[in-house]
Amino acid sequence: MIAKQRPAYAEWLQSTNNISQQFLAFGGRADVVSLAGGLPAAELYPVAAIQAATERALTRHGTAALEYGAIEGFPALRQLIAARVSAETGGTFTAANVLVTTGSMQALDLIGKVLLDAGDLIVAQSPTYLGALDSWRPRGPRYHKLDWEGEDAGFTTALAQAKFGYSVPNYSNPTGVLVSQDRRAALLDKVIAAGTWLVEDDPYQSIQLDGPPGPSILSQYAARHAGPYDGPVIYLGTLSKSLVPGLRVGWVIAAPGMIQTLALAKQASDLSSSMFTHAVALELLEQNFDQEHGRSIVPHYRERRDALCDEASRRLADWFDWEVPVGGMFVWMRNRDRTIDTDELYRFAVEEKVAFVPSSVFDFTGEDRFAMRVNFTRSSPEVIREGMRRLERAIGNYCSARPQLSGLRP
Amino acid sequence: MIAKQRPAYAEWLQSTNNISQQFLAFGGRADVVSLAGGLPAAELYPVAAIQAATERALTRHGTAALEYGAIEGFPALRQLIAARVSAETGGTFTAANVLVTTGSMQALDLIGKVLLDAGDLIVAQSPTYLGALDSWRPRGPRYHKLDWEGEDAGFTTALAQAKFGYSVPNYSNPTGVLVSQDRRAALLDKVIAAGTWLVEDDPYQSIQLDGPPGPSILSQYAARHAGPYDGPVIYLGTLSKSLVPGLRVGWVIAAPGMIQTLALAKQASDLSSSMFTHAVALELLEQNFDQEHGRSIVPHYRERRDALCDEASRRLADWFDWEVPVGGMFVWMRNRDRTIDTDELYRFAVEEKVAFVPSSVFDFTGEDRFAMRVNFTRSSPEVIREGMRRLERAIGNYCSARPQLSGLRP
Repeated sequence: MIAKQRPAYAEWLQSTNNISQQFLAFGGRADVVSLAGGLPAAELYPVAAIQAATERALTRHGTAALEYGAIEGFPALRQLIAARVSAETGGTFTAANVLVTTGSMQALDLIGKVLLDAGDLIVAQSPTYLGALDSWRPRGPRYHKLDWEGEDAGFTTALAQAKFGYSVPNYSNPTGVLVSQDRRAALLDKVIAAGTWLVEDDPYQSIQLDGPPGPSILSQYAARHAGPYDGPVIYLGTLSKSLVPGLRVGWVIAAPGMIQTLALAKQASDLSSSMFTHAVALELLEQNFDQEHGRSIVPHYRERRDALCDEASRRLADWFDWEVPVGGMFVWMRNRDRTIDTDELYRFAVEEKVAFVPSSVFDFTGEDRFAMRVNFTRSSPEVIREGMRRLERAIGNYCSARPQLSGLRP
Repeated sequence: MIAKQRPAYAEWLQSTNNISQQFLAFGGRADVVSLAGGLPAAELYPVAAIQAATERALTRHGTAALEYGAIEGFPALRQLIAARVSAETGGTFTAANVLVTTGSMQALDLIGKVLLDAGDLIVAQSPTYLGALDSWRPRGPRYHKLDWEGEDAGFTTALAQAKFGYSVPNYSNPTGVLVSQDRRAALLDKVIAAGTWLVEDDPYQSIQLDGPPGPSILSQYAARHAGPYDGPVIYLGTLSKSLVPGLRVGWVIAAPGMIQTLALAKQASDLSSSMFTHAVALELLEQNFDQEHGRSIVPHYRERRDALCDEASRRLADWFDWEVPVGGMFVWMRNRDRTIDTDELYRFAVEEKVAFVPSSVFDFTGEDRFAMRVNFTRSSPEVIREGMRRLERAIGNYCSARPQLSGLRP
């Protein structure tokens, strides 16, 4: 008997690729220098502090730390996050403004779940964080480019039609760019005028390599509007960069109505997050351990960024341009020679056992093949320098092979 | 300046209600006897064992327990679960058959995400677990009733058109029914002939109040088909009932291709689960602590079930019928007098400070208002008996008020 073919998968799966899985699998090989991921330096994770926090959390909360939780998150953790945001922004935030999520990634998924029907419009910075594109892909959105420069005549119209805008103003993924306060204010003006939502995704806030980034867009809104927060900014925070990713603790700060709606969607996604991890996070946040630890990481990351940029200046400057990022985890290298296609270069890099992320995966049109994202937080300075040497060889091999490559094109 | 109205929420939110949140909020009040939830007895959670397991996990795995994880779950945990399933079923399962999820609820969400386009058909047991209906609602599916009795002429046709079947054969939610081995086999035959998927949701397996339930449908399939598992059964397991819910550790057992596709969807939902919780779970599972602890809970739950059924026999038998469940967490009480509407009764129960779940929320048509689900695991025998007394009063008040109620109907 021949088995019948099983039912078809949902349509969105025809348009996806598992490129992140490919990167992670390749990057996990011991002989590969992976500058592809967006991973913190694991050797700096504070194992002992988390061990101690777990002991305190279970002693203090007992079975309450092992329950199905409130969908919105462990109540004391929500209150603490609200108090912090109030202090940082000067605004008035309560637990009603806070939803604790499985990292910021679940927040992106939930935002899509509550706002997007098929074909809805998102105004997103371009290039865009790959995970955000992944999270919204099942809902089949359209995209318009977020215009930080104020040169796009259609931008205001697009914003008025969009379900939300998406931005990473602090040390963006993938470009590392820090958006100026003026541009933040101009965007906020336009978002308010358009009556839409603005997602401010802020995972890299703690990785301040050359001084503080200035107020968030959320803070700018709070500075203009007194009273309990009910604004259009949906701010995403996380412990993944300042502490550890493995607790999977992130949070959304938003208007109470949006938080309630996101919680309804979260209930249908996983009933609740792990209260155990929330209770552990609470212990650490109460002591401001995450902030202290986050600051202690910065010198290591600064050294790694400098090693990357220094070695790249000597080896890659004929082919690529970049700005030295003032924070975050990435250097964004754009080709000087526009015939260099980073999708093609990637295959040569794999041959030399070095990995980066080509720009095409961050572009909602999929057409930008002119740049690459290079991570400097995961690897030691020595490994990073070795990565630059391998990349130099890969580019050389690629350039030598290009006549044949061109011949293969249609 | 009048603020513009914000963008509309996605369409599915117009068809949802947050009934679970209502139940949880009401049930959380100290003066209420809540028999509404599906919650374990918190006082039996093994706090000390989890504390010890955390210490062992961090000592053994260090920073690896604090990383972004493999999307499919902590590798050693997947292997251990696969080995257990192989031993239990007699089949051949490897880590490639296992995806670790945020409880079974995330598994239900992911199954919908990878299989359902708008309007697709699900063949589901009716009444159906409320959380399953919640998880699939955003995708707007149609439903056909799963026919355990083999009397529905359209069932075979529906199964062939459906993306998947959904069943809870062990001590079902909400009915508590244990499905016989013959009926399981008959369903499996039809699923294989139809070429579709069958979700076997098995959260209550450990709560065996009157002896073991017999082999799962997954086991039946494995007994018929030698070799590495690639069958149509998508089996869902969890630690929420046998250990604690607060770790949020559940798992999917399925064909490798389905696991890969679910992992792709999970990556876009939360990047990965908390490896910290997976590492803790691994320590406990390696010692079979969950199974041992699960067995130690059973006598307590048996006493509570008996208290409920005993008190109900004396107080509610004029109005309701039920079978004493041989496992699980619930007694399903159907009205003897078909004019009793449990949606209406619920309002009188609230007045008397006792909560149950009316049958309408478990019915994909929303029309069944003839029954109620009553939980016996969360509360002590004394509280359960008090709940029955309150319910008796609520029914009395409801019956006295019914002429007026009827008069209010259109």
